[in-house]
Formats: sequence, C-alpha cells, structure tokens
Amino acid sequence: MLSKTPRIAVDAMGGDFGPRVNVPAALRAAEQGASIILVGDEAQIRDELSRCKTEGLDIHVVHASQVVGMDEKPSDALRRKKDSSIQVACRLVKEGQADGVVSAGNSGAVVACGMFTIGRIAGIDRPALAGIMPTEKRPCILIDVGANVDSKAFHLAQFAIMADVLARDVLGVPKPRVGLLSIGEEEGKGNSVVKEAFDLLRKSSINFIGNAEGRDIFAGNYDVVVCDGFVGNVALKLSEGLARSFGNLLKGELKRGLLSKLGTLLSLGALTRFAKLVDYAEYGGAPLLGLKGIVIVCHGASNVKAITNAIRMASTFTANRAHQHIERDLEANSEIARFGRQSAKAS
Amino acid sequence: MLSKTPRIAVDAMGGDFGPRVNVPAALRAAEQGASIILVGDEAQIRDELSRCKTEGLDIHVVHASQVVGMDEKPSDALRRKKDSSIQVACRLVKEGQADGVVSAGNSGAVVACGMFTIGRIAGIDRPALAGIMPTEKRPCILIDVGANVDSKAFHLAQFAIMADVLARDVLGVPKPRVGLLSIGEEEGKGNSVVKEAFDLLRKSSINFIGNAEGRDIFAGNYDVVVCDGFVGNVALKLSEGLARSFGNLLKGELKRGLLSKLGTLLSLGALTRFAKLVDYAEYGGAPLLGLKGIVIVCHGASNVKAITNAIRMASTFTANRAHQHIERDLEANSEIARFGRQSAKAS
Repeated sequence: MLSKTPRIAVDAMGGDFGPRVNVPAALRAAEQGASIILVGDEAQIRDELSRCKTEGLDIHVVHASQVVGMDEKPSDALRRKKDSSIQVACRLVKEGQADGVVSAGNSGAVVACGMFTIGRIAGIDRPALAGIMPTEKRPCILIDVGANVDSKAFHLAQFAIMADVLARDVLGVPKPRVGLLSIGEEEGKGNSVVKEAFDLLRKSSINFIGNAEGRDIFAGNYDVVVCDGFVGNVALKLSEGLARSFGNLLKGELKRGLLSKLGTLLSLGALTRFAKLVDYAEYGGAPLLGLKGIVIVCHGASNVKAITNAIRMASTFTANRAHQHIERDLEANSEIARFGRQSAKAS
Repeated sequence: MLSKTPRIAVDAMGGDFGPRVNVPAALRAAEQGASIILVGDEAQIRDELSRCKTEGLDIHVVHASQVVGMDEKPSDALRRKKDSSIQVACRLVKEGQADGVVSAGNSGAVVACGMFTIGRIAGIDRPALAGIMPTEKRPCILIDVGANVDSKAFHLAQFAIMADVLARDVLGVPKPRVGLLSIGEEEGKGNSVVKEAFDLLRKSSINFIGNAEGRDIFAGNYDVVVCDGFVGNVALKLSEGLARSFGNLLKGELKRGLLSKLGTLLSLGALTRFAKLVDYAEYGGAPLLGLKGIVIVCHGASNVKAITNAIRMASTFTANRAHQHIERDLEANSEIARFGRQSAKAS
C-alpha cells in the first residue's frame, strides 16, 4: 500500500556510524517532507530519536534483530541473516510498505538483498549500479559500476535505458546524451560486446551519441556513459586512487618545503573540490536500478548530508514515476528488453 | 646480423614534429652510445643531420618513400604503404638489420606493422602494449593498455610473464610484485577471465601477489598490473582525462579569483608534476612486448627527451637480453605458453 508521498526504508544500522548518522539524516529528510521507515534495532533507534524533535514528522520504526557486518560475504548475509536491517528494509519494499531503500551498509549485501528480495522490473535481466560522477560541467552517470560482470550487449543496452530515465527524472536533463565506453570514438572500435551494443543503441529510442573514451567521463560531454560493471568498477576506484595520490603528492611537497604553506593550503582547497569530483557519496549514493523499488547504495563513511541526499534521491525517483518510465521505454525498445528477446526466441 | 651494441631503427617521420624532433633525439641517443638507423625521407633526414655534429656517431640512414598519416586506418597503412617509414623500420628488424623500432607515428599502424612484419616470439599468442605508469613510489607497468581486446586467461598470463621481464631487465626491479586487475582483492573476485587467470598466475613461477584494484595502480604497491587491453586503455585515458579536468578546475578558479595568483602558480607546478604521473611519454613510450624485436610506441606529441628515452629503453631491453628471458620464462611456465597449450591439446 503506497502512500502518496514516497515512503523510504532507511537502514538505520548501516555504515560506519550506524544510527548516530542514519537517524539524524532521516529526520532531516522528513523535515523536508519525506516519509521514512527507520529499520534496525528499535531500542537504539528510539534512543537516537528521543534526542530530537520528531513532532509532526512522518517517521515510523520497524525492528530488525540482526546487522550485516561490513566484511560479511553477501551470500551469507542473504542466507543466514533473514532478519537483518538490510533484508527487512528490502522486504518492506517487496510487501508494498515502502517504495525504496537507502543503506550505507555492506554494499555487496545491499545489492544481493535488493536483487533477491525486491525482484526485477519486467524486461530487465540484470539490475545495475549507477555511479553519479561530477564532471567539469554537469554530473555524468556511469553505469554499471560493479553490480555485474561479464555483461552481454543487451545488458549494456538495458543499463542505458535505465540510466537515461535516471538522468531525466532525477537529474532533470531533458534529452540525455548517452555514450558507450570504448577505446576509440569511431564506430567499430571496442571489444565484441561493445560493438554489438553499439548497434542495439543506435537503433534504440534513446539519444545515443556514440562511443565515449575514458578521458570523456570527467569532461562532461556525456550525461550517461554505459559500460560493463568490471570496467566501471575499475574506473571508479582508479579515479578515487588518483585523487588520493595527488593529495599525497601535495602533502609530500609541503613536508619537503617545496611549496609555501600558503600555496599548499590553497592547493589543498582545490584538491578538496577535486576529491568531490570523484566522490559519488557527495551525490548521496549510487542508485541500483532495475528493481521494483529504488535502492540507493551509500558509501560506508557517509555523513548525515550524504544519507539525507540519498533519501531525497530515492523520493524524487519514485515521485517522478521513474520505474514506470523505464517500463515504458523497455516496451518501446523490444529488441533490448527481456520480453522482446524472449518472444523473439519463441517465434 | 646483429651488432654488439643494439641497433635501433628510429621512425624519423613519426609524430607531430617528424624529423625535426626524431633526428635530434637520435643524435642525442647516439652521443650516449646508441647505434641508430634513421628511417624515412632521406633528403629531409640529411637536411636535419647537416645542422648537427655527427662525427664518430653510429648513425645510418635508410630511405623510405612513404609516410603513414596520423588518422590513417592501420589496416590501410599495412596493406597499401609497404614503403612507409614504419613498415621499413619493422622490416629492418625482421631482416636482422636492427634489434628494435622506436616510432611516434600512428600508434595503431605501429602495432599492426610490428605484429605482422616482425612476428611473434615462440610461445606468445598476442603481443601486448605495456604502459609505464609513474606512481607515488616506483613506476608500475600496466599491461595491456590497448593492443588487444577480448583477451583470454592465458593471454593475460602471457602478458604477466612479459611485463615481469620488462620490470626486471629495464626497470631494474629484482623481484617484481605482479598483480591482476580486478574489482576486489580477495581471490574469486572478478569476471570469468580474471578468475581463470588468477589460477594460472598462482601456479606460475612469477611473484604473483594477487588481485589489484583500480585504486592500487597509482599507490605504487605493484610493479606490474595485468589486465585486458580494453580495460587498460580505458584506465590510461581516464587517468589522462582526470588530470586534465583538475588542471581546468584550477585554471577556472584562477579566473574567478578564488585562488591568489601565487597559490595557483604553485598549484600548477604541482599539477605539472601530477600530469607527469599519468603521462607515459615521460618514460619515453609504451613497449610493445612479444615480438622478435622490441617496438616502442611513443606519443605523437613526443619531444626530443621522450624519443631519446625511448631509444635508450629499446637499447637496454635488447642489451639485457629481455627477449631471451621471456622465452626462458615461457618454457618454465608451459601451461601459460602457447607451445605448452598446443602440446597439451595434442596429448
């Protein structure tokens, strides 16, 4: 039973700080009009809530007796922790009590529980994780950043359709420019899967503008860049590593006295802005697309602002009927959609 | 007929500056003891040489009547330009007149001519391009950065063996730490090819220390990181793009007056050092490994220093008998080598 205002289940136990960050973040989102179900250890949640003003806010609490550890194997979390805060939050979506899940818990477990508990949208073979990368201009959605490996061409094309809707309904881009990550801009460059995906995307209804190269992601000339989850995860972590290495380089020069303190402080200021360029937590988290309810996977180190932003993203996604738009676009691209391929086989 | 000093064929016409950079670079390398054959338009080369002191230097000239354009398709260059400077240089290696090739010309054409004209080392299925990435500590070889796509597990393992020798014989690392690029450090993480390659590498004679993640490349904890050429090329270009975006960000802040000029100049100094972190031309070029003669693929914008360094790398590679060491290591790892797999099939 869905309320008019999208209702978001927040994993109160997830992340490095648990209820101490998730509860205040949920309160802030509720103050901005969100409808929230906090899921986790009720005593701890009530304790956090007791310190804040909650009058008039749409906040509910659902108890979950277990917590998934950050190092636990996702398959174990799925099988053995049926009453974990992540599982219970996903079950609320499955049962229609909530429209989406926000969790800063064990990413692998969140993805696994989302996939197996909530279930897929009709027409989608594999859900995908969308990294929202800030660029020199407006943000660029890199999809998939690690939910899948060994993707086939129609998987990539499905990712493109989902991210296209995300760009329109959440980032407010009217006609997203969609690129396919490859190793050359010309058609015919890439590996066998990319070449096949190129053909599918060219024939699709989305605004596919061709191959993108690694250097294009941060330049801001694409709103969506599509790739296999192995490649996307390497790209995401490489970007984080490069930013960190540059920080270490600057700090090293300060120690060696090669830069004045003033110069270094100014550089570090620019570095902070740069680090945000590659820190998708700044946008609240990475949406897992393709399930019958939005799941936002947040960084374990998320602060109140990041979780609040993630809740807002989940609410906007639902309020703007993004799932219905994905289903509509899949129907319009039957060669890409799962049911299109099935009926093709059957005929 | 090989001379005692390794003899390197330099593509005088390659790159954005042609003989104007390649000839002085060859002279500088010859002054340091290299033996050189300059390949290209003889009149232009002699004209450049006439302006320099060449007495006592081991420099020869071989005429080639054609030049491959930077935008030409490699397959066209291979088929239609039999007398291009790139082709003639490769033919000199095939005929035993030279030990290696250095070219800043059309990268795709250099790779294609190397593969088809020079021929592979016994036991190697596919040559691979080794990007030498400076890190916070010592350089890291990323292999393959774009010679191949759709690599199989034994290809990745062959890349590892070749890069291991490069690290030892050229970079002087006694026991290189070799990693496999994946999306998690634990064994069992990655796509199907990576998982299979993990097993091959674990059983091999090289010092395989496990999976590396994207963030590890620039941290300097690996001497060799192995990946498919699609992933490696995306990683290389992403790194270049990220460095450029950071530069643009700093320049933008200078314009907006957010940084003092002093601070920005100091930051830009640090940025230049940072850009070198991701500019493999600083190391002279990317060696194409697996052929019966070393080929160094240089950036089109290479300056005299870069070409000189590339010639030195080619000479060191040959002088230290790296090819023989690759063959020796392939024999010691018959499960990985081409002949190992062939005899296994035959039995």
